[in-house]
Amino acid sequence: MAVYTDVPETELAEFLAAYDLGQLLSYKGIAEGVENSNFLLRTGGGTFILTLYEKRVNRDDLPFFLGLMQHLAEHGLSCPLPIQRKDGEALGELAGRPAAVFTFLEGMGARRPTASHCRAVGAAMARLHAIGDGFSMRRANALSIDDWRPLFESCPPKVDTVEEGLSNEIAGELSALERDWPRDLPSGVIHADLFTDNVFFLAGDLSGIIDFYFACNDLLAYDLAIGVCAWCFEADGSFNITKSQSLLRGYQSVRPLEPREIEAFPVLCRGASMRFLLTRLYDWLTVPDDSFVTKKDPKEYLRKLRFHAQVSGPAEYGFAIEGDPA
Amino acid sequence: MAVYTDVPETELAEFLAAYDLGQLLSYKGIAEGVENSNFLLRTGGGTFILTLYEKRVNRDDLPFFLGLMQHLAEHGLSCPLPIQRKDGEALGELAGRPAAVFTFLEGMGARRPTASHCRAVGAAMARLHAIGDGFSMRRANALSIDDWRPLFESCPPKVDTVEEGLSNEIAGELSALERDWPRDLPSGVIHADLFTDNVFFLAGDLSGIIDFYFACNDLLAYDLAIGVCAWCFEADGSFNITKSQSLLRGYQSVRPLEPREIEAFPVLCRGASMRFLLTRLYDWLTVPDDSFVTKKDPKEYLRKLRFHAQVSGPAEYGFAIEGDPA
Repeated sequence: MAVYTDVPETELAEFLAAYDLGQLLSYKGIAEGVENSNFLLRTGGGTFILTLYEKRVNRDDLPFFLGLMQHLAEHGLSCPLPIQRKDGEALGELAGRPAAVFTFLEGMGARRPTASHCRAVGAAMARLHAIGDGFSMRRANALSIDDWRPLFESCPPKVDTVEEGLSNEIAGELSALERDWPRDLPSGVIHADLFTDNVFFLAGDLSGIIDFYFACNDLLAYDLAIGVCAWCFEADGSFNITKSQSLLRGYQSVRPLEPREIEAFPVLCRGASMRFLLTRLYDWLTVPDDSFVTKKDPKEYLRKLRFHAQVSGPAEYGFAIEGDPA
Repeated sequence: MAVYTDVPETELAEFLAAYDLGQLLSYKGIAEGVENSNFLLRTGGGTFILTLYEKRVNRDDLPFFLGLMQHLAEHGLSCPLPIQRKDGEALGELAGRPAAVFTFLEGMGARRPTASHCRAVGAAMARLHAIGDGFSMRRANALSIDDWRPLFESCPPKVDTVEEGLSNEIAGELSALERDWPRDLPSGVIHADLFTDNVFFLAGDLSGIIDFYFACNDLLAYDLAIGVCAWCFEADGSFNITKSQSLLRGYQSVRPLEPREIEAFPVLCRGASMRFLLTRLYDWLTVPDDSFVTKKDPKEYLRKLRFHAQVSGPAEYGFAIEGDPA
């Protein structure tokens, strides 16, 4: 849930005067997005999402995010399209914050994803990677493998209160990841946060992808590893290879992976688990309990990390072996 | 802000199957209402508000609230109309809670009300009172004058931490109110919570009234006193007689007050201030600081109470004297 900023109607009407959206009819703060304030906006021109960027988002990154959404939407990926103002800009200022208006996407997150959802998500991610190839701007991943150790070291010295021995376990895993991380795989624009609440479905079909505020340039197969971590574990922590196979097949139906990407997949999954373990751990130990931010359990990703660390090879994710009619 | 209950899509789709609203397209928790969980719902049939009643609302009162909204809407007052299910019922159950679907009202609360807003609010309240006259159900006011002293006595014994001497001041005021309260004024259905966030405006015109979950049977002029308390004080605590006069004139343009209602108006305003002072005080002293409920400052209504207690007569609210062309 996230509505941080109160927006007076007069300021909003003034902000909207720069757009061709007709008369302001209503706006309501919605419980969507964690980093920003979002409003459902209704005007004479239709229904839109208004986003105010709070301080956790770097202003310098906004042209990349908005440009990417525009590029993806214009090339056929269903995602929020930033509405251009009369002067051609997509970014304005409202209540002292950068702000933008987007098309509204119908659909809902799949709270209990099936293998069919996973296949659709894999295919959409591959389309995102393919279309992203033509996007000219670049943004380094601020949470890449090079950032994990500094992030770990910035955690308050109470990591072991989460679980005894956790500090040592993370330090050992980081060393293994730094040693084994593949550096020469195909790279490009990745979503980097394609969790279940960021993919909408309508009547069983994928209707759109939202929340591009972690998008960056990094290894394409690492995005896929994040997807497998987010979509293919059950609530009880068990790994569902049927879902994983569906997600990977969906992806490869659009963009077949290279053998070296498949080979590296287990370590990419370990890395993806480490990245979310560390950000959740940091928030767990630093965000006050009475904050409005709902803190996510770091142990969920610790368990996923342990699963990926003991995997014997890519076949355990459901990758087709030679001759399998995938 | 209030979204307390998470609603899985499958449960919502099942709930909506009892309605003729078409396919579920999307739903988003909105930051509206304090007592309940509200969602903006889009279906093939249009845009609606879905309300789940949380435990602060008594289930036995729901037929009164929903029946009243239906009665008012059908008689031309712009308020949310409960959508009937195929079986004719307005109330269903979702996620273990009573739940209902309402028409969506365009418009926005006036964050900086003007005299013109106040006049429109007065007129709409009088229409509500007039239309409510034909509504057959009854609900006693659970926060009437008879409830104030028990509510005060149920506050934790730290009232004076809010302000020194506050206990004695409230006890004295309660005695005065119990002595002077008018018992024989015209009564009927009142909104009882017509604050600025419960009245929507569109292009300067009043477009609707929401949040009927304090509605009850009580003195009509007491509702007007609540309105004057809510709309006619400035942010610095000063009373704005221009706004008060506009609100009263708007009301009387539809339903002229009787002389005894005007005579009693100062004591009704003292009572209205006491009612909100006491509920805010109780919440202030009992709701934990880390709760998601935003606690409102009881002192705002203490200051209003003191204003009304020193008023010399109805003229100070801007009531027209004989011969004034109001």
